[in-house]
Amino acid sequence: MAKQAPRKSGPKSAPSPQTSARRRADADRVGVWIFGARGGLATTLIVGTRAIAHGLVPAHGLLTATDLFAGIPLVELGNLVFGGHEVREGTLLDSAGEIHAATGTIPHPVLQKVQRELAAIDRDIAPGSMVNAGATIARVVGKVGASRPVQSLRAEIERLSGDIERFRTKHRLTRLVCVNLTSTEPKLELGRAHASLAGLERALDGDQRRQVRPTTVYAYVAARLGLPFIHFTPANAALTPAIVELFARTGTPFMGMDGKTGETLVKSSLAPMFKYRNLRVLSWQGYNILGDRDGAVLADDENKRSKVETKDALLQRILGYPLHTHVGIDYVPSLDDLKTAWDFIHFQGFLGFKMAMQFIWQGCDAILAAPIVLDMVRLADLAKQRGEAGPMAHLACFFKKPFQVDEHDLHQQWHALVDYVAKVRADAARG
Amino acid sequence: MAKQAPRKSGPKSAPSPQTSARRRADADRVGVWIFGARGGLATTLIVGTRAIAHGLVPAHGLLTATDLFAGIPLVELGNLVFGGHEVREGTLLDSAGEIHAATGTIPHPVLQKVQRELAAIDRDIAPGSMVNAGATIARVVGKVGASRPVQSLRAEIERLSGDIERFRTKHRLTRLVCVNLTSTEPKLELGRAHASLAGLERALDGDQRRQVRPTTVYAYVAARLGLPFIHFTPANAALTPAIVELFARTGTPFMGMDGKTGETLVKSSLAPMFKYRNLRVLSWQGYNILGDRDGAVLADDENKRSKVETKDALLQRILGYPLHTHVGIDYVPSLDDLKTAWDFIHFQGFLGFKMAMQFIWQGCDAILAAPIVLDMVRLADLAKQRGEAGPMAHLACFFKKPFQVDEHDLHQQWHALVDYVAKVRADAARG
Amino acid sequence: MAKQAPRKSGPKSAPSPQTSARRRADADRVGVWIFGARGGLATTLIVGTRAIAHGLVPAHGLLTATDLFAGIPLVELGNLVFGGHEVREGTLLDSAGEIHAATGTIPHPVLQKVQRELAAIDRDIAPGSMVNAGATIARVVGKVGASRPVQSLRAEIERLSGDIERFRTKHRLTRLVCVNLTSTEPKLELGRAHASLAGLERALDGDQRRQVRPTTVYAYVAARLGLPFIHFTPANAALTPAIVELFARTGTPFMGMDGKTGETLVKSSLAPMFKYRNLRVLSWQGYNILGDRDGAVLADDENKRSKVETKDALLQRILGYPLHTHVGIDYVPSLDDLKTAWDFIHFQGFLGFKMAMQFIWQGCDAILAAPIVLDMVRLADLAKQRGEAGPMAHLACFFKKPFQVDEHDLHQQWHALVDYVAKVRADAARG
Amino acid sequence: MAKQAPRKSGPKSAPSPQTSARRRADADRVGVWIFGARGGLATTLIVGTRAIAHGLVPAHGLLTATDLFAGIPLVELGNLVFGGHEVREGTLLDSAGEIHAATGTIPHPVLQKVQRELAAIDRDIAPGSMVNAGATIARVVGKVGASRPVQSLRAEIERLSGDIERFRTKHRLTRLVCVNLTSTEPKLELGRAHASLAGLERALDGDQRRQVRPTTVYAYVAARLGLPFIHFTPANAALTPAIVELFARTGTPFMGMDGKTGETLVKSSLAPMFKYRNLRVLSWQGYNILGDRDGAVLADDENKRSKVETKDALLQRILGYPLHTHVGIDYVPSLDDLKTAWDFIHFQGFLGFKMAMQFIWQGCDAILAAPIVLDMVRLADLAKQRGEAGPMAHLACFFKKPFQVDEHDLHQQWHALVDYVAKVRADAARG
Repeated sequence: MAKQAPRKSGPKSAPSPQTSARRRADADRVGVWIFGARGGLATTLIVGTRAIAHGLVPAHGLLTATDLFAGIPLVELGNLVFGGHEVREGTLLDSAGEIHAATGTIPHPVLQKVQRELAAIDRDIAPGSMVNAGATIARVVGKVGASRPVQSLRAEIERLSGDIERFRTKHRLTRLVCVNLTSTEPKLELGRAHASLAGLERALDGDQRRQVRPTTVYAYVAARLGLPFIHFTPANAALTPAIVELFARTGTPFMGMDGKTGETLVKSSLAPMFKYRNLRVLSWQGYNILGDRDGAVLADDENKRSKVETKDALLQRILGYPLHTHVGIDYVPSLDDLKTAWDFIHFQGFLGFKMAMQFIWQGCDAILAAPIVLDMVRLADLAKQRGEAGPMAHLACFFKKPFQVDEHDLHQQWHALVDYVAKVRADAARG
Repeated sequence: MAKQAPRKSGPKSAPSPQTSARRRADADRVGVWIFGARGGLATTLIVGTRAIAHGLVPAHGLLTATDLFAGIPLVELGNLVFGGHEVREGTLLDSAGEIHAATGTIPHPVLQKVQRELAAIDRDIAPGSMVNAGATIARVVGKVGASRPVQSLRAEIERLSGDIERFRTKHRLTRLVCVNLTSTEPKLELGRAHASLAGLERALDGDQRRQVRPTTVYAYVAARLGLPFIHFTPANAALTPAIVELFARTGTPFMGMDGKTGETLVKSSLAPMFKYRNLRVLSWQGYNILGDRDGAVLADDENKRSKVETKDALLQRILGYPLHTHVGIDYVPSLDDLKTAWDFIHFQGFLGFKMAMQFIWQGCDAILAAPIVLDMVRLADLAKQRGEAGPMAHLACFFKKPFQVDEHDLHQQWHALVDYVAKVRADAARG
Repeated sequence: MAKQAPRKSGPKSAPSPQTSARRRADADRVGVWIFGARGGLATTLIVGTRAIAHGLVPAHGLLTATDLFAGIPLVELGNLVFGGHEVREGTLLDSAGEIHAATGTIPHPVLQKVQRELAAIDRDIAPGSMVNAGATIARVVGKVGASRPVQSLRAEIERLSGDIERFRTKHRLTRLVCVNLTSTEPKLELGRAHASLAGLERALDGDQRRQVRPTTVYAYVAARLGLPFIHFTPANAALTPAIVELFARTGTPFMGMDGKTGETLVKSSLAPMFKYRNLRVLSWQGYNILGDRDGAVLADDENKRSKVETKDALLQRILGYPLHTHVGIDYVPSLDDLKTAWDFIHFQGFLGFKMAMQFIWQGCDAILAAPIVLDMVRLADLAKQRGEAGPMAHLACFFKKPFQVDEHDLHQQWHALVDYVAKVRADAARG
Repeated sequence: MAKQAPRKSGPKSAPSPQTSARRRADADRVGVWIFGARGGLATTLIVGTRAIAHGLVPAHGLLTATDLFAGIPLVELGNLVFGGHEVREGTLLDSAGEIHAATGTIPHPVLQKVQRELAAIDRDIAPGSMVNAGATIARVVGKVGASRPVQSLRAEIERLSGDIERFRTKHRLTRLVCVNLTSTEPKLELGRAHASLAGLERALDGDQRRQVRPTTVYAYVAARLGLPFIHFTPANAALTPAIVELFARTGTPFMGMDGKTGETLVKSSLAPMFKYRNLRVLSWQGYNILGDRDGAVLADDENKRSKVETKDALLQRILGYPLHTHVGIDYVPSLDDLKTAWDFIHFQGFLGFKMAMQFIWQGCDAILAAPIVLDMVRLADLAKQRGEAGPMAHLACFFKKPFQVDEHDLHQQWHALVDYVAKVRADAARG
């Protein structure tokens, strides 16, 4: 089931869909609009997609590249057209070069091969929004960030919507998916402005900037335009009841939140084992260290809180009883994006004897996250084509805090996805 | 689902069924005949069962003590009557005292409480068989071992069968389960004597001792007597086609082989995660260090080979492609039964980037194994009561090399057990 | 040099010096007055000393039991007479029983053997002082703690001094060493009352309780009585300039502070290696998890600060340049005193390449600390006999923050001790 | 002491001494003749030296670049001229490109900068010797290796000597150091041909090829030419009594054997800590996994034996008592040169309680080894200039099995080096 099929994703040295629109049937191409388009994750995603399309690297990390999805009509990776919003200055090539120097995850030959394509995509990246983004993000972005002063919330929304519409027109795209890959925002205190769409509209009309974060605005724009939306960060300001109401109204599929890539992925895979053996977990301590802009943003206690909350809840859900847990996140600049996590699990077995398991996870967050974002872009596009709307519960396995899904056991989540694929296949056969 | 229900297993300070047979309805009690009855695992199992029955310790580690089995008519732990064969000298209390001193897994108050009961059980333990057991086991057992000189294979079989029959009569048992907990034997070269029951009978008639190991004889005895049989070790000499044919003929359920307790348990729980993310596992190196009689026996290369083979195969089965693997087992006397394993997993993700995960497992083998043996004793007894025969595939989750089961993914195995329990419940509702 | 010489410490089944004073020459016995006399560390120390004296266990962990000290006239372990102050209720046997149940570090046979001796020592333990100890310690001690209401600072000092004097008289002791093993106190803001002895005396006269902690009072008492004092905790309230002045005035040797037993010990042993190879340490992250009363007290941020400060400073001192460090301490109740530490060391080598080393330390704090306290008791008594006064710099290797010693390299510290022993030997040869 | 002084090593963009001999005073330059000149270690060493000379990277890893050596007249890194023997085909740039792709240790910008210089050095690399190198090395080298058929041992020696002499003449070098960096050879059975120089000469005369390995020949050549020799591998065929006699006769300094770079370095740094605390080490298990040509060669049991022997002996020497140890080395191709080691240390403390420490070392062998080879080249050249001859005991800290040095404690070894430097400085002041 897990066999590689890298070549299905595109022919060797595929011409970029970004610059060769005319040579392809319009319907085959899918736009990917990325909020946070020049961040480490977005850069990795874009470079990797092109590298796979050119046949330079295998499609490792992409579940949709395995036989599980054989015959499912997913957009080819080579047919993805990228654009987005970004608050930082610089080019995609700058960002890719930085990543190459820091971690080597983007190899030099790949960098050379995709250089021109990155420059073309840069022209489809517009200034992002910094409305009420919090002090830490502002500091990390720097003074000369690429965001614009906010005239009013309504004006901001029109500006951002216009960028997307122009992109759609320019590339003659009939299909487009939005993805939120911005940095972790401070938590937003939710109130009446988030409880209903009417409440949100009033807040927007009143230009109540304290009631929104950038992701609120981005999600609102996607929902209003009827574009499938993947909310990959832990920000609580995006998928509020108000926004969800708007997605329902426009019949648009969406899913979130907070991509499950490292320590939490392992947790949700490993915790069921203790249940299967009735081994009583006494304590589960997790320590994450990472560098990078991500780490710098999370070093801020306010931003960290958003993150830790989604990481810490799942153990009790899986195991079925309360236990002592801890999730630490510390900033270690020298690590860049090579995140290391140490988890210590103390458990009690027969005769009350205490034993321990530890694991050490050494992964690169962007490398782990990029392919599952791509998986979800393809699956969100598929859902839209199939006329599905609302939360895509079958994508729960990709999230630390799957929207309106209580199941945190990775294996159960996986089987939900497998069942969905079977259903798609059955529907197709039925015809 | 995993909530503890320790008290269901028996009233506080339950009188031992071993010594108070008359006061109980015969049908409620179940005999447990253990091959290797004074080994570390058997001792832990017996002491722990009594400690739970007395309410001294919780029933941690026992899956059958969780709500998953609520309403399933399993024998109560307090109603288990123990007996068995053993080749080493000494008493159960000696063995329990050794364990207390070495690892502390059997606490002192428990030891004191069950002291007399152990002495009673000792009287139901008869000399085991050493027929063609191999040089290392012979050495570890020592010169003054409690085995008898072998007159002939047929005589040995009659002797062992007689021991079990006497136990059955003495305790007026109508239900009895056999469990093999002996040390890992050297691999037996299988040939015509193992391919069919007729072949085996000829070999026994001809007293061809080279064609059997102790576990062959034990399994033959259990099968012939129609007693459910749990083969908990990796010995390949027990569940041969010949023996399986005999189990079929007597309509007896059985299962094996090699209990899945530590590193392999984690492997089979963790490996699917890499499949779910299409992360290509390049290398999976596992190193096990342990002391104890078990470690001493495995320090012998011939005995170790049996073990490593069952530990190493499952990764390729779960992942679906060949990969570089290694399973080391080294003898570290100072560890006693506190086994430590280090696994290093090297895997490749998006853009071909290599990452690593490591885990360290620090468990006590006997503590991990004893409760799943108890789980299987209860479930084997249930199967027998329900008229099931042949391999109990629903117990696959408890074995490194489940008999005739190709599924090694722990989660799939678990769901097979859950499905079985649902079926039992449905049958009961129907019946 | 490291060969064991356990038998030198005392004959098998040595009669307790506590209860058999008359049978021994007075001059051979040394009193050990412990502040925190029934804590986990003190209990372990007392039980272990007696167990060694009885020949039940080897003298592992005691440096003074190695050949390095052959011929040095140290008090025999069997000749130590214990007493002390304690704020908690209960008996030494209670405390030892708790330790046996929690971690098994005190084996059952030892517990039985020393039971009576513990009861005798209990009679030499008087109520400790809780003056300005902080809220957390008060909470952990509980309402029914054994401390007395404080009449006045002067009265408190007289009460505590009287206890020690009575102990001295009762056991006809001519030699006595004081040891502070109390829980980590919150940091004390130091001011004029600590800068000079005169200042402190004024504060005592004025009953300014905010200017002292319990360890201030204990150290004052020891200094005034001219008793050698080992300050084993990180409390900054003990060895203030005022107290040091008093030690100087009474010609008394002392040393502190904060025993180096686990993670920090490893750090100070390992960090020089990076210097020897000019490997640039970029980050050194340390995470400590522990349960126990110690852990509970350190879970309080105020108390933790005292601890972290002494643990974090040494790396820069050893390596000679600033680096990114972190020391975390988290309370994990299920661990009891079995402390676990994970350290991640990120370093840069040739060609600027980054590499990593990790270590995991799993030790029992009391087991590691008790023997070095005993080592220092013997060496402090020796120093006193030799007429030395002031800080015992040769004991730096035993402390996280050695008093007035800048050298943190464990190896250099060790050689300082070796040199001291050589000097003692030379003096003896000369003398 | 450890402050970086990278710029002292050479001006930015230093012209290569290899190609610009005329512009420099002859006496300032030092030749480095490397046996195994295109292996991973040699390539890393050469590239790194040039990168430092160009100011592209700091001199991390080089002890001689620290303030410890301030004022000591060591050759500047920019003045090293490289040549050597090699049995494999290909160019230095090929080798450097392979390293870049496999591990990224040689960064791309460095590769580009030194490209031409590598080509120039290639012209100074002559075919090495494969005389009796063993089957595994032959297989790894491949059929088309660059070695020449051996006419006779005497002819081979003349050929190799001639290569060095030509190099010396071509670059007008008055100073030259030889370094052995070849792959680990199978152990040579030592006999009369190695016991004395006369014996060896007879064996050479008789063309007894079974009596030598390539390193025998290399060491003989260096000794005969009076060139300082660093024996960096564990091969036992180089520093035999016969060869040592020849070094003595020609008044030449030399040292070996087997560079101490990873797990063993940590061991020799950490083991003293257990001695300092009288913590009884019960077991020390070490597991090394690595890929690369080195790993492939060591996967051969015969070659591995040489290695394990030198790695395993030092613990007993440092601790002073026998203990259970194990050193495993396994080949894991996916790791390339990124060696990972897991060590488990089981030790016993006070009250006989057992505790554990583990460490995980993740280093790149070539990156760790290259700078200490450079350190030794500079120090060997210094020794030669100072008229020293015979084993350079002050370099013991760099070797797993320092020649004729019994001290394995890293700290003691370090102080021997510090003392030597002080002596050099004192001599210079006096002189």
